[in-house]
Amino acid sequence: MSDKAFQDYYPEELSHCYGCGRLNDQGLQLKSYWDGEESVALFQPEAKHLAVPGFVYGGLIASLIDCHCTGTAAAAAYRAQGRTMDTMPPIRFVTASIHVDYLAPTPITAQLEIRGTLAEITPKKVIIEARVLADGKVCAKGKVVAVHLPESMLKIMKGEK
Amino acid sequence: MSDKAFQDYYPEELSHCYGCGRLNDQGLQLKSYWDGEESVALFQPEAKHLAVPGFVYGGLIASLIDCHCTGTAAAAAYRAQGRTMDTMPPIRFVTASIHVDYLAPTPITAQLEIRGTLAEITPKKVIIEARVLADGKVCAKGKVVAVHLPESMLKIMKGEK
Repeated sequence: MSDKAFQDYYPEELSHCYGCGRLNDQGLQLKSYWDGEESVALFQPEAKHLAVPGFVYGGLIASLIDCHCTGTAAAAAYRAQGRTMDTMPPIRFVTASIHVDYLAPTPITAQLEIRGTLAEITPKKVIIEARVLADGKVCAKGKVVAVHLPESMLKIMKGEK
Repeated sequence: MSDKAFQDYYPEELSHCYGCGRLNDQGLQLKSYWDGEESVALFQPEAKHLAVPGFVYGGLIASLIDCHCTGTAAAAAYRAQGRTMDTMPPIRFVTASIHVDYLAPTPITAQLEIRGTLAEITPKKVIIEARVLADGKVCAKGKVVAVHLPESMLKIMKGEK
């Protein structure tokens, strides 16, 4: 795995996400890396993240899949262009849709491993498939359709109308 | 709308969910109610819940849909049995799968309205469709397949093997 996570390359104004922004000190600060052809992120749930005692709530799992997959989509797009993630212009994706299948109760004490694989890449969208493992067992599978950050959001972020 | 939310009827051991448990004081404490044939929950995102400046991160929207739909599934199951939610035995659902389509950027300043409708109910599962509105505009649509809380989770919760 490389030293810097995908999210560490996001420009400052795109680094406030609750799930993965390095500048959101109240957020989850998920970090994703290449591991060969797959991407991987590790996350230790906190005690508060429970669904019922002993198990992680589904919203956290969806959040981790979401941010891991949009990060992987960006990394895959740079890779497809033969560019490293520190080159301009920045590529940043948002989620068009997410699907998660919860296959088994996810223990809250385990460190979660979120793994992503590239399913499809076109100029308009990137589809990433993910699985979440606890103690080596797949607890959830997910799929994210990621699209480029819309111009409308960029304009509002910059204070334009 | 009734005075008590669906989640207020959950037994104590099932009231710790980060998304909707009344006993999780660090959680979102979502509250869902019947509004005629639909269910509704209101939620005000906090500043930390952002994706990019000005907009809500997708994981929060998925979490709200998840908890609102499992709550609505329980309420619909009681209703189908002609029972009020304060009668025994308790009915509690968990999420088998969730799908969310993000249709428009969701402003972080708006109070979000999550509305659910019953799509299908069988003895084994309940399917709830949801939409999330901000300022009256639908920003996301979701679908949750909810199933009864597995015996295996109940046993672990009770300290059995």
